[in-house]
Amino acid sequence: MARSRNVLESRNTMIKVGIVGGTGYTGVELLRLLVLHPEVEIAAITSRQEAGRAVADIFPNLRGHLDLVFSEPDVERLAACDVVFFATPHGVAQTSVPALLERGVKIIDLSADFRIRSVPLWERWYGQPHGCPELVKEAVYGLPEWNREHIREARLIACPGCYPTSVLLGFLPLLEAGIVDTGDLIASAASGVSGAGRQASIPNLLAEASDSFKAYGVSGHRHLPEIEQGLADIAGGEVALTFVPHLLPIIRGIHSTLYATLTDADVDLQALYEQRYRDEPFVDVLPAGEYPQTRSVRGSNYVRIAVQRPQNRRKVVVMVVEDNLVKGASGQAVQSMNILFGLPETLGLDAPALLP
Amino acid sequence: MARSRNVLESRNTMIKVGIVGGTGYTGVELLRLLVLHPEVEIAAITSRQEAGRAVADIFPNLRGHLDLVFSEPDVERLAACDVVFFATPHGVAQTSVPALLERGVKIIDLSADFRIRSVPLWERWYGQPHGCPELVKEAVYGLPEWNREHIREARLIACPGCYPTSVLLGFLPLLEAGIVDTGDLIASAASGVSGAGRQASIPNLLAEASDSFKAYGVSGHRHLPEIEQGLADIAGGEVALTFVPHLLPIIRGIHSTLYATLTDADVDLQALYEQRYRDEPFVDVLPAGEYPQTRSVRGSNYVRIAVQRPQNRRKVVVMVVEDNLVKGASGQAVQSMNILFGLPETLGLDAPALLP
Amino acid sequence: MARSRNVLESRNTMIKVGIVGGTGYTGVELLRLLVLHPEVEIAAITSRQEAGRAVADIFPNLRGHLDLVFSEPDVERLAACDVVFFATPHGVAQTSVPALLERGVKIIDLSADFRIRSVPLWERWYGQPHGCPELVKEAVYGLPEWNREHIREARLIACPGCYPTSVLLGFLPLLEAGIVDTGDLIASAASGVSGAGRQASIPNLLAEASDSFKAYGVSGHRHLPEIEQGLADIAGGEVALTFVPHLLPIIRGIHSTLYATLTDADVDLQALYEQRYRDEPFVDVLPAGEYPQTRSVRGSNYVRIAVQRPQNRRKVVVMVVEDNLVKGASGQAVQSMNILFGLPETLGLDAPALLP
Amino acid sequence: MARSRNVLESRNTMIKVGIVGGTGYTGVELLRLLVLHPEVEIAAITSRQEAGRAVADIFPNLRGHLDLVFSEPDVERLAACDVVFFATPHGVAQTSVPALLERGVKIIDLSADFRIRSVPLWERWYGQPHGCPELVKEAVYGLPEWNREHIREARLIACPGCYPTSVLLGFLPLLEAGIVDTGDLIASAASGVSGAGRQASIPNLLAEASDSFKAYGVSGHRHLPEIEQGLADIAGGEVALTFVPHLLPIIRGIHSTLYATLTDADVDLQALYEQRYRDEPFVDVLPAGEYPQTRSVRGSNYVRIAVQRPQNRRKVVVMVVEDNLVKGASGQAVQSMNILFGLPETLGLDAPALLP
Repeated sequence: MARSRNVLESRNTMIKVGIVGGTGYTGVELLRLLVLHPEVEIAAITSRQEAGRAVADIFPNLRGHLDLVFSEPDVERLAACDVVFFATPHGVAQTSVPALLERGVKIIDLSADFRIRSVPLWERWYGQPHGCPELVKEAVYGLPEWNREHIREARLIACPGCYPTSVLLGFLPLLEAGIVDTGDLIASAASGVSGAGRQASIPNLLAEASDSFKAYGVSGHRHLPEIEQGLADIAGGEVALTFVPHLLPIIRGIHSTLYATLTDADVDLQALYEQRYRDEPFVDVLPAGEYPQTRSVRGSNYVRIAVQRPQNRRKVVVMVVEDNLVKGASGQAVQSMNILFGLPETLGLDAPALLP
Repeated sequence: MARSRNVLESRNTMIKVGIVGGTGYTGVELLRLLVLHPEVEIAAITSRQEAGRAVADIFPNLRGHLDLVFSEPDVERLAACDVVFFATPHGVAQTSVPALLERGVKIIDLSADFRIRSVPLWERWYGQPHGCPELVKEAVYGLPEWNREHIREARLIACPGCYPTSVLLGFLPLLEAGIVDTGDLIASAASGVSGAGRQASIPNLLAEASDSFKAYGVSGHRHLPEIEQGLADIAGGEVALTFVPHLLPIIRGIHSTLYATLTDADVDLQALYEQRYRDEPFVDVLPAGEYPQTRSVRGSNYVRIAVQRPQNRRKVVVMVVEDNLVKGASGQAVQSMNILFGLPETLGLDAPALLP
Repeated sequence: MARSRNVLESRNTMIKVGIVGGTGYTGVELLRLLVLHPEVEIAAITSRQEAGRAVADIFPNLRGHLDLVFSEPDVERLAACDVVFFATPHGVAQTSVPALLERGVKIIDLSADFRIRSVPLWERWYGQPHGCPELVKEAVYGLPEWNREHIREARLIACPGCYPTSVLLGFLPLLEAGIVDTGDLIASAASGVSGAGRQASIPNLLAEASDSFKAYGVSGHRHLPEIEQGLADIAGGEVALTFVPHLLPIIRGIHSTLYATLTDADVDLQALYEQRYRDEPFVDVLPAGEYPQTRSVRGSNYVRIAVQRPQNRRKVVVMVVEDNLVKGASGQAVQSMNILFGLPETLGLDAPALLP
Repeated sequence: MARSRNVLESRNTMIKVGIVGGTGYTGVELLRLLVLHPEVEIAAITSRQEAGRAVADIFPNLRGHLDLVFSEPDVERLAACDVVFFATPHGVAQTSVPALLERGVKIIDLSADFRIRSVPLWERWYGQPHGCPELVKEAVYGLPEWNREHIREARLIACPGCYPTSVLLGFLPLLEAGIVDTGDLIASAASGVSGAGRQASIPNLLAEASDSFKAYGVSGHRHLPEIEQGLADIAGGEVALTFVPHLLPIIRGIHSTLYATLTDADVDLQALYEQRYRDEPFVDVLPAGEYPQTRSVRGSNYVRIAVQRPQNRRKVVVMVVEDNLVKGASGQAVQSMNILFGLPETLGLDAPALLP
């Protein structure tokens, strides 16, 4: 096979990107998006475990697109980058971020390390002391539809979790409008198995997880405090959320079904949503009566939302779909990078979903 | 292949069974269960469209188990049966039931024809006049865990729908105990595609429905009035349910996630559920902290239920799984037949689920 | 949930069964089949790793069907059984079988330990010395359709592998008739992922193995020497097989597509197959022109076979489906047990496949 | 949602593209590829059945990417295009192509109408008279790896079928080298269900086709004469192929497992394949010992190939994967368009596969 041209070309003006922890699904997804990004040069990708191995050996879809070899997570090499993405489990970015920030590198962290502003709350849910509490306050929560202006100025961006992205974007118009009971919000959400990461595990085997469906984490999922923090920020006050995640026998995709009780019965919900997201490049409010399907965003950075009020009662039902690896992780991270570097926000992110 | 013995043997004392509409999924599922039932002889199976064709031609899993040929839906032939199952779309049983009842045949109707006691309500949701309103009152709603004694005496049993079975069994202990706000019940449910029946359709193609997830029928699903009627019966008063069904990319299985607000915060929910279902042969309350998976009931007549109260707040979450074709349809119909004929309730229904 | 009756009842005359290695898929499948077997009492099930844990904790489909707890693999306890099934990885049965045989226990080994008569060949393919070479000759290859009379008299039965069962049954009529070139046989086979066992592994995650298809083991799969031995036994001489297994994104099912070159062009292939398997309870030769589907045997002990001669050329194509966990493993083991104990061969095995 | 920029921009120098029959899977796949193609403007897309309906209504992945409405298949509108793709069932292009060619429009036909050079052969396999036999000879078979120079000069390109593309590219190095017995070639191939098109059908329902696998069309699949014609062209003489297609429970992807008998035992097969495809941008020969997976090409125009010689015997096994909708249809059509218009061959086609 002849190499694709994007393997060979590289301009000096390109953004030099480093990726820490490139062997998981958010890592390979970053690579898939970035090899086609016209303003990016992938300078380094690290993995302690796979150091020395060609990236395309592990991810055969990248054969011919990327000549890189996994390297040890070396500060010097990463410090030569303009921006470093952390696609690592929680606890890793905390220890490396300060040294890189000091060297002037921008950080986009896809892990949970800097998402929660209350350090004690973080420590309770993640069961370990926070390794870098002094930077938590500075970190900007990277949800462009809510926070675009702060992202533009950030040094350290904490990318939202996959469930939080869909739940926050779904409730946002209702909360901004102040028309629902914030003490009784429900998110019944379902995620494809790639959300569980690329780890050997019996419950996520095809023979176990396919042709089945179940809830999990009802007693307490780590995305709950993150979502409640975001909802409270938007609502401007306390909220209470019942959050029930489910495991879908699909690879990619999150579907969040949200329930809230209207305190104002006269609102035109369809107009409210269309109005709020009219200028957002990645949020699509469906026509009234249509239902979003996860496949309609598969592999893309789009979120599609529908809102209904069944039987014209007081309960509003919001349905949100996203690709958990794109808008729920790596695509949103690239969107933040585009904002951070003054590029068009959709650059490298405007491919339609893969359907069928 | 040598014939299985059950094809050949037949005792005079056996229950002679007829099935009307045997080409859909509830039809083949009835056959799968009944060919192994030790007290049943399948005497007739009808299909206008496939009359004359061997049943095993259409359903290759039945090759060697059943020698029957589809016949025209002929009253004389059906009148020679002890019991006739209707596995037909709504509107069919209505027209045939009176003649069979007159001939002393018991009727177990898997369709929606006799489930809703209010004829005008039925006519509004099903968009047609009811063909046999005089029998609606007599029909017994065939949910044994609620209605066992009436089933025993019935001439005409209306089998519950697949969603209603799971939602009713999930809410039942809470409603009987009177400890939740009946004006704000939510059922976020998900069904495998076999629930949509064996009809050619683009949206249910593997290429469309697999690797995806979506809600549907939020503005009004025909199971809503049936569920609300059942909930009101149990609660002894008005209820309001928000019902959101979703389509799962699996063949069989329903998972209902139910939400209610506790009015009594001191109840021991785990004990309540275990107590209520202690003597039920087909309802399994899981140990505290476990989650039901649809695969754990695949192909079986069991329902598995778990109950949780996240963060110890006022919202209770109930999770229920069933196989929509078994406990949600044909298995429950056979369970009613067993009750009706004084047989052990589990006869022919005690096979464990197929796992993995 | 009330216990099923089969948990409670136990007759003295029942066959006492032990299972070694009950935490894998062939183990749980043995349990699923045996809890309904009318002549069997499950006396012991061992697992070094899970000793003390309830079986139904790991396999939720067995809740209510089985009260057993995993025990340490203790010879005394096993020696009290009439028959012990080994559902273990290769290398385990070898070390335990002699002591049990000495105590008069019959052995049905689902592993590869006693399948290959040439000890050096076994040692080359399995990469370790054989722990019990003296019993290899005595072991009877448990393929009833080929070997029924020897099974009846055996002390030690080596159950065929999943691929070998389908390939041998598919080629058998051609080889017995002596009408194909035995030096050029091809088996292009595909298996569901349960064939890879219940082991944590990245390649078998749903996120990796679903929505995909690949070949594997082309350079040398351990079932190749077993199949070639069986084919040579049937053919009465040397054979050469090209064996290419593939991984299907389904849970259960093997489909083998077999290719051979006819040396006699005048044979009626359909009649040959129907004639050969006319009296076999578990082998179904489909009508001419029909195609076997793996779902038509899902969860059942049946094998379905079709034979075609495309374009009326010299190449014959045989298609065989089986459930790899039933006829390819645990069901075939129970079939051998029935033969061994003089029971009707189909006892406990005559359930139709789960379709849809 | 703000419109993507590619919806708005349009340069005069762009290639004006028309698509006839845009409601099937090859149609939507053309749209997915072309909305991102930097040198293309989609000028018209026709559908008799859906005329007047927005394309994005039917294909929700295209919302925001395409403002077009399906139009009646009108010659005038199509004649204003530079190139028209036919994504229609066979029999349609035949009737429209002459008028468009006359108007100077280039034609890229994804259907079977112009693939087979022998009109009587075409008529026998497709069961109808050919509507435009005079153009069959002129049509160029659009397999760039075999035929690139002729594509460059063509007016009418007949895109290869999905199975033929994989089988021809797999056998090509062996046949060009003249080292296999051309009288005994076997293609055991498997396709995802999107290959069956977007038609309502019971056998392709998720409830029927998922969790299963089967062969079909063994007695005679319409791709057989097309493949044999291509193989004979490459071999420079008669060939005989046994072709067995199978249906995979996945959406996209073809895996062809090819078998041939070596007449020259000394060849270095790995080197032969690497050498042959060294300069091909879309054909990737895997390192020795690796296996191609369909997911490694999902949504991409790449073909990945591996070659093995099991047990060092005379049989060579070639494994080929492609995405049946991309390299097997619409991607290959765009590749031909690029060649035809003197663009870089990979333009708009160099996205990596979607993995996981």
